[in-house]
Amino acid sequence: MSAEGFASVDVAVVGAGLAGLSAARELERRGRSVLVLEARDRVGGRTLNGEIGDRAAVELGGQWIGPTQTRMRKLVGDLGLRTFPTYGTGAHLTEFEGAVIKHKGTIPRISGPVLLDVARAQRKLDAMADEVPLEAPWKAPKALEWDSQTFWSWMRANLFTRGGWSLVQLAVESVFAAEPEDLSLLHVLFYIHSAGGFDALVDTEGGAQQDRVVGGSQLVSIAIAKRLGGRVVLGAPVRRIAQEADGVRVVAEGAIATARRVLVAMSPTLATRLVFDPALPGLRDQLTQRTGQGAVIKCMAVYEQPFWRAAGLTGQATSDVGPVKLTFDNTPAEGAPGVLLGFLEGRQARILGRESSELRREVVLSCFARLFGPEAATPLDYLERDWAEEEWTRGCYGAYMPPGVWTGFGTALRAPVGRIHWAGAETATVWSGYMEGAVQSAERAVEEISAAEGWS
Amino acid sequence: MSAEGFASVDVAVVGAGLAGLSAARELERRGRSVLVLEARDRVGGRTLNGEIGDRAAVELGGQWIGPTQTRMRKLVGDLGLRTFPTYGTGAHLTEFEGAVIKHKGTIPRISGPVLLDVARAQRKLDAMADEVPLEAPWKAPKALEWDSQTFWSWMRANLFTRGGWSLVQLAVESVFAAEPEDLSLLHVLFYIHSAGGFDALVDTEGGAQQDRVVGGSQLVSIAIAKRLGGRVVLGAPVRRIAQEADGVRVVAEGAIATARRVLVAMSPTLATRLVFDPALPGLRDQLTQRTGQGAVIKCMAVYEQPFWRAAGLTGQATSDVGPVKLTFDNTPAEGAPGVLLGFLEGRQARILGRESSELRREVVLSCFARLFGPEAATPLDYLERDWAEEEWTRGCYGAYMPPGVWTGFGTALRAPVGRIHWAGAETATVWSGYMEGAVQSAERAVEEISAAEGWS
Repeated sequence: MSAEGFASVDVAVVGAGLAGLSAARELERRGRSVLVLEARDRVGGRTLNGEIGDRAAVELGGQWIGPTQTRMRKLVGDLGLRTFPTYGTGAHLTEFEGAVIKHKGTIPRISGPVLLDVARAQRKLDAMADEVPLEAPWKAPKALEWDSQTFWSWMRANLFTRGGWSLVQLAVESVFAAEPEDLSLLHVLFYIHSAGGFDALVDTEGGAQQDRVVGGSQLVSIAIAKRLGGRVVLGAPVRRIAQEADGVRVVAEGAIATARRVLVAMSPTLATRLVFDPALPGLRDQLTQRTGQGAVIKCMAVYEQPFWRAAGLTGQATSDVGPVKLTFDNTPAEGAPGVLLGFLEGRQARILGRESSELRREVVLSCFARLFGPEAATPLDYLERDWAEEEWTRGCYGAYMPPGVWTGFGTALRAPVGRIHWAGAETATVWSGYMEGAVQSAERAVEEISAAEGWS
Repeated sequence: MSAEGFASVDVAVVGAGLAGLSAARELERRGRSVLVLEARDRVGGRTLNGEIGDRAAVELGGQWIGPTQTRMRKLVGDLGLRTFPTYGTGAHLTEFEGAVIKHKGTIPRISGPVLLDVARAQRKLDAMADEVPLEAPWKAPKALEWDSQTFWSWMRANLFTRGGWSLVQLAVESVFAAEPEDLSLLHVLFYIHSAGGFDALVDTEGGAQQDRVVGGSQLVSIAIAKRLGGRVVLGAPVRRIAQEADGVRVVAEGAIATARRVLVAMSPTLATRLVFDPALPGLRDQLTQRTGQGAVIKCMAVYEQPFWRAAGLTGQATSDVGPVKLTFDNTPAEGAPGVLLGFLEGRQARILGRESSELRREVVLSCFARLFGPEAATPLDYLERDWAEEEWTRGCYGAYMPPGVWTGFGTALRAPVGRIHWAGAETATVWSGYMEGAVQSAERAVEEISAAEGWS
């Protein structure tokens, strides 16, 4: 990039999250010149390390890597980073219908009918999910029927206990940061299939929450960006993408790039805020009018030590009361300081997102104290991140499809528009919405661009 | 406005559609200085006149005024314009389950069970709609239940004949330019209540399609803009709204305005594409991530004379075959040339929107010929407008709410953000989504701004 902020490259990449950076890394490997333009003054997108104490880091955004997330596992290794298991020694807590139950394994010893109810629903969902083609969910044999109803409607017809309802609702909130009524049944099925099953989504050991990155997940993006060096430009929000006769012109604040192709590696909802010249096709535009991001506030309390470990607890809890319905031990690999992580998701995040940080702190700590004892009420520090408030994210964990969108607009999700290609976790077919999905989407986009340009 | 494109006014208005213009008009009347910034090179927003022949005009966008749309009726009169009735002399056509039926009045003589089925559904909807508070649909006694399901799910539980289904689906498509699965049941009920009943939405005589403006509906906006003169700036897309200590700064391409307050009179989905400084609250942003615009392509064929009139036909037809499912006689007030209007709505618009205009012409004319005879196949001219392709509209007739949005995010729809106020048909409580609603939203916004500033 020149001092005047101008560069001419093979591929311009918009967004220095995991998708954009891993695409840029792969393109460079293949001998292509790249420039990554990032709106923020940091890389990592929805992954973000926060500092606690002197040197320890804790994840304020996406953080976990599951056993079947092979791309992320390889990437972490290739970059010289390591993973460690989410703390899980001891008993979990489940607050359910007025009592707090201690239990090992994912499933608490709650009433038989409730467990049966959930197990049967889960089996049905897994079987239906298998029928949803990952490349084209709208081609599922019952796509129209499944996309015409909310997941709430499906739950109403298929869950028969109040406890079963609240457990499945909790699973939905923790996976989508949204409520059952927000989601198309078809989307839930796509997501389950994309992750390899219901259990893979919700489990810690053996599932999506199994491992963490030593030093925090943002290190992955930081390490890639370090290798890319000056080819990553921070503080440069892209405002306009113009397609010209033999290339594309990407105009950011303070930087302009011309390129053969542009890869837009942002959530669909943010991508729609750029100015495109010529304007995007109607179907593509209308798709991005409908793909809202979830709502989650990630809240953490820091203690001198993870005191719950001494009491034989994993720090993992679920609650049907809330507003914190899900907690984890998020202590760094070093083992101290102790960090309790609580999620406010979906409706809770929307409601508490309007309140002050002080009020949220009070609410979250009172939930922690109810579950883990009075010691939890007086942390050394409290951190939180409301991702809906972040101008360059506008909601986590990712976008989801309400009814009608997959079948009405789905074909436009990944379809390139001339020289514009799309990446980002929402465009993934495998582990859609996860860090793994971001990397998979980058792989696909690099192949797509290379094929279009005839690059080997 | 100065030659350098700078103005300092009491209120800056973004968007010269009916909402923005009628708000500016009222503010001026009250002695306030205004500046209206419009992205296009014309006023009128979703209303647009097209030329046919030498001098006649035909409406390519919103066009009708119903008997209870009192604000529009008054506005038209005040501006020295006139209305005339939608042509309705003779028999309507209904293509239904393989036959074309001629009939007078709205209701065709189709099978008794179907008519009963629809009548019963309509009665239920009207009764439920009455329970939805127009200012706050999320406060309806059953708001959560109604907002948790699609209208498709409600239809499945409440319609018992195939014919009933297809008639109600047609009503949904013609009112929302969307499919039953796209819509929250609560939103449909809100819309019905907002219009004053199901019949008011779908009827021509006595309903929302009763009258037209002589010379075309865009004349209303053109007439207001003429009175506002230099206070309307065309070709000036607003890009940034910055709130400062004692005012607001509105930055458009080629023009900057400072003002006490800004009124954003755009659809929610377009409003979210501006840059706001400071960034908007998360809840407001997330609302606008979810309010997609409908999809409609308005197609018209022009003939020397309205030949169907001589055959005793109104030119109004409905069809359960499609892709044109709804037609009108859209001949200008002068009585010639003859104009047949056909709508492609919802799914049909999304699918045919991807095809060439030539193909659409062929498809539309073949529908016209099937209904009105071979003469319809050879028009003098063919006009169409695909509103999803319009960069500064991105879909018509308006935005609609999928499940979960009214109850999860509805409070943010009209709530001012500091010095930023919101208008536009989507923010109306009366005739939401219609020209009438645009004007009503402007009235409300002017009151809101005046109260906030202490203006009398």
